[in-house]
Parts: sequence; structure tokens; C-alpha cells
Amino acid sequence: MSTVSNRRPLAVIAGLGNGTGTGASSARLFAQHGYTIALVSRQRDNTLVNLVKEIKDAGGDAAYFAVPKYSRDAISSAFAEIRKQFPSSAYAIRVAIFNAVHGVRNHFLDATPEDIQEAVDVGIIAGFAFSREAIVEFKSNDLNEVGKRGTLIFTGATASIRGNVTTSAFAAGKAGQRSLSQSLAKEFGKDNIQVSHAIVDGDILTDVIRARQKNDPEWINNADVRLDPDSIAASYLYLANQDRSAWTWELDLRPAHEKW
Amino acid sequence: MSTVSNRRPLAVIAGLGNGTGTGASSARLFAQHGYTIALVSRQRDNTLVNLVKEIKDAGGDAAYFAVPKYSRDAISSAFAEIRKQFPSSAYAIRVAIFNAVHGVRNHFLDATPEDIQEAVDVGIIAGFAFSREAIVEFKSNDLNEVGKRGTLIFTGATASIRGNVTTSAFAAGKAGQRSLSQSLAKEFGKDNIQVSHAIVDGDILTDVIRARQKNDPEWINNADVRLDPDSIAASYLYLANQDRSAWTWELDLRPAHEKW
Amino acid sequence: MSTVSNRRPLAVIAGLGNGTGTGASSARLFAQHGYTIALVSRQRDNTLVNLVKEIKDAGGDAAYFAVPKYSRDAISSAFAEIRKQFPSSAYAIRVAIFNAVHGVRNHFLDATPEDIQEAVDVGIIAGFAFSREAIVEFKSNDLNEVGKRGTLIFTGATASIRGNVTTSAFAAGKAGQRSLSQSLAKEFGKDNIQVSHAIVDGDILTDVIRARQKNDPEWINNADVRLDPDSIAASYLYLANQDRSAWTWELDLRPAHEKW
Amino acid sequence: MSTVSNRRPLAVIAGLGNGTGTGASSARLFAQHGYTIALVSRQRDNTLVNLVKEIKDAGGDAAYFAVPKYSRDAISSAFAEIRKQFPSSAYAIRVAIFNAVHGVRNHFLDATPEDIQEAVDVGIIAGFAFSREAIVEFKSNDLNEVGKRGTLIFTGATASIRGNVTTSAFAAGKAGQRSLSQSLAKEFGKDNIQVSHAIVDGDILTDVIRARQKNDPEWINNADVRLDPDSIAASYLYLANQDRSAWTWELDLRPAHEKW
Repeated sequence: MSTVSNRRPLAVIAGLGNGTGTGASSARLFAQHGYTIALVSRQRDNTLVNLVKEIKDAGGDAAYFAVPKYSRDAISSAFAEIRKQFPSSAYAIRVAIFNAVHGVRNHFLDATPEDIQEAVDVGIIAGFAFSREAIVEFKSNDLNEVGKRGTLIFTGATASIRGNVTTSAFAAGKAGQRSLSQSLAKEFGKDNIQVSHAIVDGDILTDVIRARQKNDPEWINNADVRLDPDSIAASYLYLANQDRSAWTWELDLRPAHEKW
Repeated sequence: MSTVSNRRPLAVIAGLGNGTGTGASSARLFAQHGYTIALVSRQRDNTLVNLVKEIKDAGGDAAYFAVPKYSRDAISSAFAEIRKQFPSSAYAIRVAIFNAVHGVRNHFLDATPEDIQEAVDVGIIAGFAFSREAIVEFKSNDLNEVGKRGTLIFTGATASIRGNVTTSAFAAGKAGQRSLSQSLAKEFGKDNIQVSHAIVDGDILTDVIRARQKNDPEWINNADVRLDPDSIAASYLYLANQDRSAWTWELDLRPAHEKW
Repeated sequence: MSTVSNRRPLAVIAGLGNGTGTGASSARLFAQHGYTIALVSRQRDNTLVNLVKEIKDAGGDAAYFAVPKYSRDAISSAFAEIRKQFPSSAYAIRVAIFNAVHGVRNHFLDATPEDIQEAVDVGIIAGFAFSREAIVEFKSNDLNEVGKRGTLIFTGATASIRGNVTTSAFAAGKAGQRSLSQSLAKEFGKDNIQVSHAIVDGDILTDVIRARQKNDPEWINNADVRLDPDSIAASYLYLANQDRSAWTWELDLRPAHEKW
Repeated sequence: MSTVSNRRPLAVIAGLGNGTGTGASSARLFAQHGYTIALVSRQRDNTLVNLVKEIKDAGGDAAYFAVPKYSRDAISSAFAEIRKQFPSSAYAIRVAIFNAVHGVRNHFLDATPEDIQEAVDVGIIAGFAFSREAIVEFKSNDLNEVGKRGTLIFTGATASIRGNVTTSAFAAGKAGQRSLSQSLAKEFGKDNIQVSHAIVDGDILTDVIRARQKNDPEWINNADVRLDPDSIAASYLYLANQDRSAWTWELDLRPAHEKW
């Protein structure tokens, strides 16, 4: 078996929020399944520090690479740092999850230039930069046991496929990102690189949502009405494990009782 | 634990072709995962007999219920027979897979009235009948460990989302069926019933396709270019196991090198 | 100029309801623009008689061809009758509008087998038959002044692109019909035959709707909230007049204040 | 009649290329139909000078407002200049067409940061700025004879709805723009402002395309295979004239023989 094949699988996960959502759940789950985890996010309090500690305490391996904001340069620098800490001689980036979002919601005339710029910068400009780093890494990988070089996953939203009255900026960034994911899926499938896009339709049970709904514990505890980030992470692991003969570009994820 | 909960899980799978495609792979996989299997299909040679035997030999349980054709009455009768053999006192139908198809392809002016009628009868009329039987069964179930009463899965195709120059009849049936699956997903989500639709985009490696490509063994052996029915079945099992907080209506499945 | 070119343009319009909706408005408008009108519909009271009279009184020419129901045979017979009355030596069918619909709405478990069958028969089976007659006619036409042989238009609905909780049967028929229209558009564009599909999203101000809203005259008189069938007809005339260098398969039509 | 109603209709058209495409054809056609024309574009040679002269020579009125590039500030400044020359006391902006595009095509790894940035800046950032100026203007208008305050039209492309192997940057910008148009259509319909999006699917016969195909005069002269910009302009005029009871957000436009 080649040296290459023996490299440890590394998952790069961008977008952690305050460490209680999809990114963090994905980090934990992929760590449990043998991936070393590289976290890329804006540091909020000790979110990244704590998440790394939690993964290590559970027997996994992880490191974080804080970015000041989601820009092309920041993404490139983060990947350079990742490669210093987890060199390509020993680690193969096999999974990359882009989960960063500027989820602003407001009426069109209330959207500030900064809102629009950030929706686009995070969703598209940083999405392109992250994809480029991931794709270049994947191309240097050998095929794994399910016949692929790597899996790039984007966390989308209903706004990815539909503009609406309070989502002009948010939806534009997400629609552009979804389009990017489709272009990449079509171009790099022939290189055995899978690119997937998950349309998350509903509220994800993060600490932010818990705080917002704090007077409605029934809602919080009702798995029928909001998405558990661990369940989203489970679907990402499933996507990463799909074999090359039948893999998925896009799926939607919503709670059982979501009205849609 | 209630008596109801102790009923054995039963999976009804319609559409087996000659026993080498998605339906048969699903039957084998769900049998391996503890489901009793009820096969519904037109009997071709000994396809159903052999598949039942194969599942039983592997330690599973299965029975077949041949239908003369895919009509409303035939589907209803088949479910009645299923319930005679696997009574609701002991078996809970938890999974229903509708995989039957009339995959005719021809130019519009070459489509016979029979082609059009059968595309519609199999895809939509039988699809409605099958859905009704499944939904009624699911509604009488309790919630399982992932919080759902049942999972209904349709095997779709690229034609489900796009008409084309040789698919007018086929695509009309599949588009109607996809629409049905969406209506059902929206209506019965609130009853914790999941309805999913898989867009299979590419050739599935059945015996029919093997025969067609018999002079191109490289193609047959190349997992990058055609779908392995076992891989499709794996995705169906994944769908059936998704929990209620984040489940999927639609996903696409295609081989890595498919041009799309 | 050839004899063929001198044939009078004939528009066949199927689906007239009670003569106050899209079909009737289209009949009047195309008659005003020089088309002889062949009406195909189930006769309701004197709807067809009256509409023919109205068109003739306004200086146009029209005839009706009542069908007992929308079936393949009834459609074929209607076209045969049309050709007896308006022979191909003197009349070229240039426009065909399929506006028939079985607009049933009910929850899935309340949909009777008859509802499902009729949604499919009217939407798809009759849609195929109507298309076949129109396409065969169009293929024998020469190019008109905008470079086309004929225009086939389908009246779709929101249900054509989206299943929902009370539209399983209706939406399945409309989705199948929309798929048909796309297959036809792709196959017969190269023959300079345009096939279009209008997604009507909202209530059309027919007598049926007027009666339903009779206690809300404000709604009836408010052009912002419901579609005027004359406006839909105007868009159909626009489609028929588009030239071959830039024509439309699909457009949506909705009132200004429609929530969507 | 109010003073407001007597204001002359003004159409602002952004994106003129070298003056031979959709923007220029729209300028000529709307000028013929009584609109004063404000052209916004990067000046290329004397494109804008010549187009203004041509419109004036034909008896219309027009002025140009060159922008150094498509940025938020440049768009805002252009509208301020427009309002100096065509003050709101005398002119009502009734139509705004956003036709600017950075139509780069390359494989993903060949897309430069500048390509990606410009696709996004032109398609989305400038699209938002242009929309804001137009919407604010429209909101101050009274209803015109078809019951609307204004019409905002975006020129989209196949890439607006589909990413592909050489369109990652282009498609991301166009998908974001299409999403914006849908958000706006939904939010401002209730203000009787129509927002439309045209999916242009095929080559438009501009001078650039003429030069590319100069050795294939048959192609150039064949109206079946490429879009005439005058025909696209005709569809924009149709959209602007649709009344409030049945108007269109999205339509596709393609030549008769386009394979799609």
C-alpha cells in the first residue's frame, strides 16, 4: 500500500458560529469516525478553543484556524496554516464542509450595503476560495475505499432556491453558492470528487435559536419542528460515505412537521 | 413496551423487473436489516420465486405477491394479500418502495396510445394506489425509534424533472409521480410519515443493461459510469433511517463520471 | 405567394368551462386578430352555442365541436370534425390552446379513484391526444411571417410545478402535462413549432369565481388580486406572435398583489 | 389629470456592451414607444455617443451616463446624474432594464479572483444598487394605465438557473441576480411594481458574435439558431406593457432550433 493511502483523513470545516450548530456537530461526528478536524471560523469568545478541547477529550484530534472574516485571503491563509500543522505527507484532506453564512434577513430597502456585501462575500467569494483550496487538495488524493478523492459539502438553505420578501441579500448569496456547488459537481465528478449541497429548510436548534425560543421549551424539545444539528451532521457523514457509483449533489433536510 | 411496538417491521417493495435492479437490491438490503419483505411485481419467469428464495436462504423472510399489471385494483389486492400473510397484529409496514416504471423511450409521434397509457398507469395511477395503501398503513403505526411512522420512497429519474425529445410519455408519468411524492411529503409530514423521491440520473447496472453493454466489459466494471443498484438501495436505507428532525424529500443519485 | 400561404389561420381552443375564462377570452381575442376559431369543449348549457354566436356577431368566424369528455378518441374525433368544417385546403391550424382541466382539490385520502383518473385523463391523456393532432397539423404548414409553423399553448397552474396538501391529483395531472409541453418544445422547435406553457398563479376571474366571491365585490373589482382572463389571452396572443429567433417555452402569470 | 401623471416616461437601461445587443435594441424600441432613454454603461469607444445620436436622429430623446465600472457608487452617481438631466418634476422613471453582465467563461481552476469578483460585482452588487434606485423611483410613481408604478427587468441566461463546467463564476453571479429578482418581485408586487427576469438561452446576435462567426454567414443569417436582440427587446416591451392582473416574473427566450 502506498504512503499516500496511509495518510490520515482530515476534514476541514468552515463556519462554526458559536459552536452549537451544524459545523460543530459535523466536527464532533467526523472526529468520532476517524477524521482529524481542522476548524475554520471567526473566533467568538472561546468557541473554537472549547470545541477543539471537547473533540480531544473525546479521543479525537482537532485544531482551529481562526479567520478575521470570510475573505479570499483569509481562507487561503487558513489552508496554508492547516497544512503547516497537518502536512500533506501525513494527512489527506478528504472532506471539506462550508457552513459559513451571513444569515441577515431584512426588507430590501433596509438591507445596508454592508449586509449585501457580506452576504456575497461570505456566501460566494469565500465559497469560491474555500472550494478552490479543497478541490486542489482533493485532486492530489488517491481514490479512497468508496472510489472518491474527496467530498465538498455546502450547507444551503431554503433561500438557496427561492428569494423572498425578507431574504434578498441572504438569498442572493446562497443562490450564488448553490450555483457554484452545481458547477463544481459537474466539473469535478470526472475526477471522482463529490460536491454536495444540502438545502436546510427550517430552524436549526443552535444556542441562538434556543435563546430566541427560551419561553417555549415545548418547541425546543419537539424534534418534529426544528432540525437537530447532529442529524444534519449525520447526513453529511452519509454523503461523505456514498460510493462513486451513486452519489448525491443535492438533498433537502427538514423537520417532520415543517410547513413547506 | 406496547404490543404495537413489538410488531415486526415489514417493507413492501413494488417493481422488481427481472430481479437485478433497485427493487431487488433494496429487498436484499432491507431484509439484512431486519425487515420482512413483501415483493409486489409482475412475475417474469421465476424472478419473484428466486428472489424470495435468495432472501430466505440468507436468513431473512420474504414473500411475493404477483400482479398481472400495475393498476389500482391490482395494487389494492396485493396489499390485501400481504395483510393475509403478514397480519397487522404481528407486522407493521414501515417502509414502502415504489420502483415500478414503464420506461419507454420514443419520439413523440412514435409513442403509441398504449405507451402513453401505460406510462401514466404505472407511474401515476398505480403510484397513487400504492401510496394510499402505504399511507393508510403508516397512519396506524406508532412512532419508531427515529420518530416516524413510515417511509415511502419513489424511484424517480432525470425524466422526473425534465422532458426531452424521446421521453414525452415516460417523463409525463415520472413528473406526475414526483408531484405526487411532493404533495404526500407536505401533507403527511405532520403525521410523521416521510415521503422521499430519488432522482436516479444514469444507467443502473441491471441484467438488461449488462446485456446491452455486453461487448463493453470495461463499462460494466467501471463503477464511475453506471449506478450500482446496491448503492441506490443503501441510499434508500439511509432515507428510511433518517430521524424526524432532519429528513429528506428529494435527492439525486448519479455515478461520478456522469455528464449532466 | 403559394396557395398554402393563403390559407386562413385557424385556432383550435380546447377547454371552455362555462365560457367566461381563459379559453373564451382567447377565442374572442384570436378571432379579433383574424383567426377562425374552433372550440372544443364539453357543452355546458349553451356555452359553446353562445360563444360562437358572440364571435360571429363581432364579425369573426367560429364553430364548436362538443366532446362528451376529454379522451383520446373524443379529441381525435373533434379534430376530424374540425377538418370537415374547415378543410386543410382553405384553413391552416396555426394555434392550438389546451386549456381543459380537472381542477379538483382535496386531501389525498379524500381523492376518489375517479378524481385521480380524471385529473390524469384530462391533463395528460387528452393533452397528449390534443398535442398529437396539433403537431401533425403544424408540420404540414409552411412558415408564417414570424418563421413558425404553429404555436401550441398549455394553460398550467402553480400546481404544475408544485404538489401541495390539497392538490395531489390535480398537481400530478398538471405536472405531467407541463413535462409533456417541455418534451414537445424540445422535440419540435427544430421544426419551427413553438410549444409554450403558462403557469397561471392565482384565481382567474371566471363566473365561477365571481359567484364564489359574490359577497366581496371589492375583491372582484380589484385587478390587483385576481387574473383577468382577457389579460391571460393577451399573453397567449403575444406568445403566438413571437418570432423564431427568441420565443418562450414557459412564463408565469399572476396578479400584482398575489402572495407567492 | 394630475401633474404627476403628465410626467414623461423615462427608461433607464444599464449594460450596452458595444451597442449592438439587447440593451441597445431595448433603447431603440422603448424610444420608439415614447420613452425618453437614459443609458448607463461603460463607455466603449463612442458606443454611447453613437447610440444617443441614433435615437435622437430617429426622433427620440436619450442621454448617456457613463460609469467607470459597475459598482454601487457608480450606479448611485449615474442615477443622480440622470435625475439632474431628467428631473422628477418632468420625468417618471417607468422602466429599468439591467442588462450588464460579466460573461466570463472558464474552468473553475482557471477563474481568476478578478473574474469571480467581477461576476459578483456586476451581477449582484451592481444589480442590488440598480434595483434600489429603480424601486425607490417606482414607489414615488402613480399607477399608469395598466395599473403599475414601474417595471424592472433583468437579462438572465441559462447560467442563471444552472451551473456548468465552464460557468462557475458567471453562473454564480447570474444565479444571485435571479434570486434578487424573485425577492423583489415578491416584495414589491404589492406596490404594483413588476420585476421580471428573462432567461436568454442561446447566442445573441451582437457584433461580437457576428465577428466570432464571420466565416459562417449562413449561421448569422439564420434566425432559427441565434437570438435577434430586437426580438428580446420586443419581449421586454411586452413585459412592460403587461397589466397588473396578469404579469410575469420569469420567461425564457431561445431560438427555434436551440438544443436544450
